[in-house]
Formats: sequence, C-alpha cells, structure tokens
Amino acid sequence: MKKNVLIVGAGGVAQVAAHKCAQNNDILGDICIASRKQFKCERIIESIYRKNNIKDKTKKIYSRQLNALDIDATVKLIEETNSQIVINLAQSYVNMSLLEACIKTKVAYMDTAIHEEPDKVCEDPPWYANYEWKRKDRCKENQITAILGVGFDPGVVNAYCAYAVKHLFDKIDTIDIMDVNAGDHGKYFATNFDPEINFREFKKVWTWVNRRWVEEQVHKIRREYDFPVVGKRTIYLNGHDELHSLSKNIDANSIRFWMGFSDHYINVFTVLKNLGLTSEKPIKT
Amino acid sequence: MKKNVLIVGAGGVAQVAAHKCAQNNDILGDICIASRKQFKCERIIESIYRKNNIKDKTKKIYSRQLNALDIDATVKLIEETNSQIVINLAQSYVNMSLLEACIKTKVAYMDTAIHEEPDKVCEDPPWYANYEWKRKDRCKENQITAILGVGFDPGVVNAYCAYAVKHLFDKIDTIDIMDVNAGDHGKYFATNFDPEINFREFKKVWTWVNRRWVEEQVHKIRREYDFPVVGKRTIYLNGHDELHSLSKNIDANSIRFWMGFSDHYINVFTVLKNLGLTSEKPIKT
Repeated sequence: MKKNVLIVGAGGVAQVAAHKCAQNNDILGDICIASRKQFKCERIIESIYRKNNIKDKTKKIYSRQLNALDIDATVKLIEETNSQIVINLAQSYVNMSLLEACIKTKVAYMDTAIHEEPDKVCEDPPWYANYEWKRKDRCKENQITAILGVGFDPGVVNAYCAYAVKHLFDKIDTIDIMDVNAGDHGKYFATNFDPEINFREFKKVWTWVNRRWVEEQVHKIRREYDFPVVGKRTIYLNGHDELHSLSKNIDANSIRFWMGFSDHYINVFTVLKNLGLTSEKPIKT
Repeated sequence: MKKNVLIVGAGGVAQVAAHKCAQNNDILGDICIASRKQFKCERIIESIYRKNNIKDKTKKIYSRQLNALDIDATVKLIEETNSQIVINLAQSYVNMSLLEACIKTKVAYMDTAIHEEPDKVCEDPPWYANYEWKRKDRCKENQITAILGVGFDPGVVNAYCAYAVKHLFDKIDTIDIMDVNAGDHGKYFATNFDPEINFREFKKVWTWVNRRWVEEQVHKIRREYDFPVVGKRTIYLNGHDELHSLSKNIDANSIRFWMGFSDHYINVFTVLKNLGLTSEKPIKT
C-alpha cells in the first residue's frame, strides 16, 4: 500500500477528502494539504482536529503553499513530503501540470474532473484524448497509476455503469445519467460545483447518440422525470466529463448526461449569459 | 452673451449637446470637448463635420484630454480655451470639482444631474444641500451663474412645473413626474442613462409626501398608467434629483417621481442585485 497523501486544493471537496483521509491515516500515513492559499488548508486541518476526525494521532497532518501550475515546485513538494499518492482537488486547469509532476516523481495521481485549458471551453470529443490520455504511455513506462474522474459524476457513475455491464445486462442500448441536486441552503443562487467550471459546461452540449458525437444547444432539450425521494424535476441534456470515457469503454449505442435546473437557475444563468458575464474572456468597458 | 463653450464629457448626452452647440456656434463661439478619453471627443467632432452640423466654419471646434476631478488642470484648461461657459456632461462624481474650477475662473457652470460621492449612495434629502447649494454664496460673490440639472428630468420637468405654478394653477396639491422610456434598440438590456448612476438610484426611495420626506423600498409601490402614444405602462415610485429642488421651490403638498420598468428590467435588476453586482463596493472573491 502506498503511503503519505498530498491533497492539492482546499475547497469543499478537498475538505471532505481530507477528513476522510485523516479518519484512515493509520493506512494512508501523513497527509499534506497544499493550495495557493495556505490559510484555507489550515482551516481544514483545524476542523479535522476540532471534530476529532483523526484516527492515528502519531501521524502528521500539515499544510503547504503551492502553485500547482509550477511543475518544479510540485515535484519538490512531493519529494519533501515523501508523498506516494497525489489527490488533485484543485481547479481543473492544473490537471496536466500536476500529472506531469506525478510522472516525474513516479507517484500515483487522482483527480475528479477533466482537464481545462483556460481559453478553450467545451472542447471537442473525446476531450480526454486532447490531454490526459496523451500521458498514458508515460504513466505505463513509469509504472504509475493515474485514476481520472474519481468523484460522483464522473466517478461513482462510471463504476455503476461498469458494474451493470459486467454483472446485470447482456447488452446496453442507452445510458442516461441524470444528475439532480435537490438540496437547498437557502441562498439566492448556487451552482452544483465550482461556478466557473460549471458555467463553462454551458457553452454547447456534446452528447453520444447512436454511436456518434452530436452537438446540441445548451438548455434546449428538456424532460420531466419523476425521481425517487425528490419527486418530479426538470432535467436538461448537457455535456459532461464521463461521456468521453464511457463512450470509449462501454459498448452502448447512446450515452447521455442530463442535469436538473430549476426555472430560477435557468433565469439567473440566462441573465448572466446575455450580459456577457459567463464568458471566459475578460470584460472590457 | 458669454462666448466659448467647454463641454466636459464625451458620452451620449455630450454628443447631442456638442452637435447643438456647433449648430449655433455663430452665437456660442469656439467649442472645446474635453474628456478622460480624448479619442471619444474626436469621434464626436468627426461626426459634427460629417453631418455638416457646424454653422460658422471659421469658429474652432477641438478636443482636449482632462481629468475633471483635478481642479487645477480644469482651471488651466478653462483659461487656455478662453471658455466662458462650462457644460458638465461627465459622470456626476465631478460636479463639485468642476463647479469649483468655474468659481475660481468666474465662468458659467451647467450640469444635468445631482453630485454623487462614490461611496455615498442615495443621500438623505434635500441632497443638493450637501453639495451644490453650499457653493451658492460663493457663486453670488463671484457673479457667476450655475444652472443645475438642465436636462430632461431634472430640467424640462422643472421648467414645466414652474410654468404651471406661475400661469396655470392657483394652488398645487400633488406633482407626479412619470418617466417612461418606451424606446427599443433591440438589445437585451438597457438602463435609461449611465447604468452605474441609474443603479445607484435603486438603493432606496426618497419621496416628498404631505410636506415631509418619506423613505420607501425600491420597486415596491407600483401603478399602471395609460400614457398617450405609448399606452399602458407599469411605473414604480422612485427617488430622483428634481424632488430635492422642486420641494424647496414649489409650494406643493406632495411631489413624487415614478419611473417605468418592464418586468424584464425588474428581473435582470433583481438578479444582479441579489448576486451583489449592483453594489458600489468592490467585489472580492
């Protein structure tokens, strides 16, 4: 078992992952949380101690400042911390530099979302082929494992699909992934995850239909679906990371991703989009 | 008759005023247009020549770069251009510095809107008493005329009210100013004037009811009104510059200002406001 974890990023997902790692630090060893803003890492560590979520108190849990676009700095940090597992929970702009640092140091790499280039939004399918999959041979040569998209969607969704193929069905016609967040924190507006990355998804829709990539407009194709527990919700055909890997690895005719949005969400998004506030380009007056 | 006009500002209103001045430059003399961005002044001058809107071609029409918050620079420019009339068509943040430069050089001052301090939004009534009216004695001593709010509203509205008091009625009970812009340029969203200043009006509503200042919430009190030409429109009780001068100069029980907004306008404004994008305070992440 590989020892010592370097968590890069200090947002909501990093917070959860850090608590989980600390609860299992008898197996995982020392944990370092690194981010551009070190105080956010310290805040997470403080909450782990406060909630007594650290199993083996003899193991270290500590923070470092890191710009994960800087490969040399990341290599140095991996070596200094003696980490054998890197969990990338930072913004998706750093995937390729962080993976590169892992290849150089021969340590395991994990992330939860596809790589994003700042000036390229909604890249052509299969998106992974532009970035992560180009490093496949070098990962093999260096005998390291890189697990991509280990979150919920992508992540758990891919595991469910693989399980269904292996154990439940003889043949797969269509996979519909329906992502609905029915939570409510009482605030005026929220995206399902990092707003910047979330909004970048809504430039165009790439979907896999009858074994071909089809481009559709954002928020154009909608359905009502009666979900268990949360009830009827409106879902919209959307592009998403896992379509790119599922379409490669699963022999299905169609694989589609649907995301739930309330009328209020669509309204706020439409206003921001029409005023030019969702663009990746800098606003000039 | 005073000669030579210095127009400060190069937006939409400055454009119209410059054309009008040029059409009457046999009376007004030389015209200088000054702004922080000199190319915008040049663009106006080019359009005057292109449309042949200059009456006396022997008179000068030219541009200068000016930061109107810099009183010394403005004094120097007034002297260099030998201007006797300054028309302030810049943003309302420069009123007091520009008026000061006019007092120092003893030239006439005109503006179209009340002074704004960047960090003070929707000041307490009567707003003019905090700024422009404090210079009244010094204008008198220096024998200069300062005409405030010479646009449409305030401006023409005030003239109509004064005419009604003098010539049409024995007694005034209520003045309702109803401002509806029924134009459409086909764009997604527009404010009636400078968006920044327009949005600053919508923090609270100060209105003059039964000879007292009353504070109300923005977009709370609404009416349907059937206007000539444009038909039925929804208008909202709003604060506005002229209430502060009319309540001082006209013996009326109530003076109220109403502004027309479509449901679409209210929706876009509500989204921006709830996301914190209409605040005068800098946005921090």
